Amino acid sequence: MIEVEVKARSPPDIEAKIAGLGGELIGVENHLDLYFNSPFRDFAQTDEALRIRIKEEGARLTYKGPKLDSETKSRRELTVRVDDPKALESILESVGFSRAAVVKKRRTKYALGEAVIAVDEVEGLGTFIEVELSGGEDWEAQKRAALDILARLGLAESIRKSYLELLNDAEGR
Amino acid sequence: MIEVEVKARSPPDIEAKIAGLGGELIGVENHLDLYFNSPFRDFAQTDEALRIRIKEEGARLTYKGPKLDSETKSRRELTVRVDDPKALESILESVGFSRAAVVKKRRTKYALGEAVIAVDEVEGLGTFIEVELSGGEDWEAQKRAALDILARLGLAESIRKSYLELLNDAEGR
Repeated sequence: MIEVEVKARSPPDIEAKIAGLGGELIGVENHLDLYFNSPFRDFAQTDEALRIRIKEEGARLTYKGPKLDSETKSRRELTVRVDDPKALESILESVGFSRAAVVKKRRTKYALGEAVIAVDEVEGLGTFIEVELSGGEDWEAQKRAALDILARLGLAESIRKSYLELLNDAEGR
Repeated sequence: MIEVEVKARSPPDIEAKIAGLGGELIGVENHLDLYFNSPFRDFAQTDEALRIRIKEEGARLTYKGPKLDSETKSRRELTVRVDDPKALESILESVGFSRAAVVKKRRTKYALGEAVIAVDEVEGLGTFIEVELSGGEDWEAQKRAALDILARLGLAESIRKSYLELLNDAEGR
């Protein structure tokens, strides 16, 4: 599946603006994201990610491929639910992957038409929004739709870096 | 968890012998096992295994570490349930693992005291039995118990090779 995603730093009044556009609250999730690096290629260089996300409702393993364009952070994404994230972490470490970073965030999700808008309070980084569209055939159209929502929220500048990359930047790595 | 396991080629009358020792039928499972190899170390050389097992009841990812002794095939084993084995296979391939082999078998399981006896009809290899004991603290005692069950079944010769290794041998790889 191709996930079209755009992201921006968020001002404090963003939730009111999302409501003003007709966005409807979906819910709030707490994410504990464990990122892994490969023993034989550096995912920071190849622009890939391998992540275990632990939420209240359960855990998932997700692979994200390299970004597909220069404007958004759209990429191929593969996900599987797992029942035991600790066992999965041990398996990944046993076959040579190493934990690269941990990202904690509180995500408040809104639905706006076909899009999902996530307001993320990320520990150590601040607040961001991500606009996601997925599942459609025409990803150029989805990309325009996602960038249009950012513009309507008054957020012109899209960030293509992941939270993992932003945290590494912040820590001077 | 340490899994103590011994294995032997099985004669045709083995199920009657298991019943004669007091073994109780647990059930029959069909296994489709996909084995993967690592891009940076050869699991055939390091005596490790990474496997997706697909059964009627669901799928699991399992890592098996190198064997722990010279008499049995006891080893560290880590397992996680997954909801989508196809997606997991794509994730493993995306991060560089390659499918090394597929093993299909029909497993009939019996309980005998603390042990589980599996009678495996393996496509392309024939019939085998595996005696498993796990969860205990004293794995030397479990090993003796498992080898004793083999002896009581009249099977003196324990095989330490996995079905993957036996299939590779059969194919002259």
